[in-house]
Amino acid sequence: MPIYLEDFAAGQQYQSGTILVDAAAIKEFAATFDPQPFHLDEETARGTLFGGLAASGWHTAALTMRLLVGSSFQPAGGIIGTFAEKLEWPRAVRPGDELTAEVEVLEVRPSRSRPDRGFVKCRTTTRNQDGEPVQVLVMSLLVEARGAAGEPHLISSSRGTRPGSD
Amino acid sequence: MPIYLEDFAAGQQYQSGTILVDAAAIKEFAATFDPQPFHLDEETARGTLFGGLAASGWHTAALTMRLLVGSSFQPAGGIIGTFAEKLEWPRAVRPGDELTAEVEVLEVRPSRSRPDRGFVKCRTTTRNQDGEPVQVLVMSLLVEARGAAGEPHLISSSRGTRPGSD
Repeated sequence: MPIYLEDFAAGQQYQSGTILVDAAAIKEFAATFDPQPFHLDEETARGTLFGGLAASGWHTAALTMRLLVGSSFQPAGGIIGTFAEKLEWPRAVRPGDELTAEVEVLEVRPSRSRPDRGFVKCRTTTRNQDGEPVQVLVMSLLVEARGAAGEPHLISSSRGTRPGSD
Repeated sequence: MPIYLEDFAAGQQYQSGTILVDAAAIKEFAATFDPQPFHLDEETARGTLFGGLAASGWHTAALTMRLLVGSSFQPAGGIIGTFAEKLEWPRAVRPGDELTAEVEVLEVRPSRSRPDRGFVKCRTTTRNQDGEPVQVLVMSLLVEARGAAGEPHLISSSRGTRPGSD
């Protein structure tokens, strides 16, 4: 069930399922996107600032997105991030960690120029199995208003633009 | 050549190489981390807010990291992000786009509690082949001071903590 702009309100919360992060996944992501020693090899990682193998922060971010897409947090039009005013990784994600994400709606704002959409600012906190936050993200999402449903021709879709402009 | 905290100064700029993003890479990342229609299938994507296949913003972020790791921007201790005060995706990344990233140093700040490290705040702008920004990230990185080199035992590495605390 898609959640339209009009259905969102500050204070609402959504909880995701869980996802297990193993050493193989940490290394595979790192090999493709963040090939630094502390993300690639246990031995080498010991002598680094991390003191052991740790997931790339961007891996944590991507896994958080995966958790949200599979959750009951289903904004109309999809989960479309436009800009974040905060992204932090207070703890490393380690092999064997089990992550879960919680979304809290902070603010709902109709678009000034397009009545068919608006912005929903959310704080998404990703935690490990001990409940410790490994990522905090405050991001504004673009969400369709109820009137926009089934009327995609109303929406500008020229190549190269992104639908996030207000 | 690692760049130590003392070597960084506001105004310095670093330019990465380029990376080509094809439709297969967009779909592969999306299948694992962001399985939404506009990231998975050209046909379905046409009827969405994106108006065509577009890369996940988190894919753009991960590719930007890959560009930086391969560039001359080599802070001592690695590229270790702690927190971002801005992350935005002003344009979608489309199949065939060729991305490049530019880092500008905004601020250098020694740690208040640990003389062996400090924070370097950078703006990283990722652009497509037309020079249009597809991502802007303002993030503070943890960087080793010159004295910390070769003395990893000085650095707390207890499990579960991340080296980003001040």
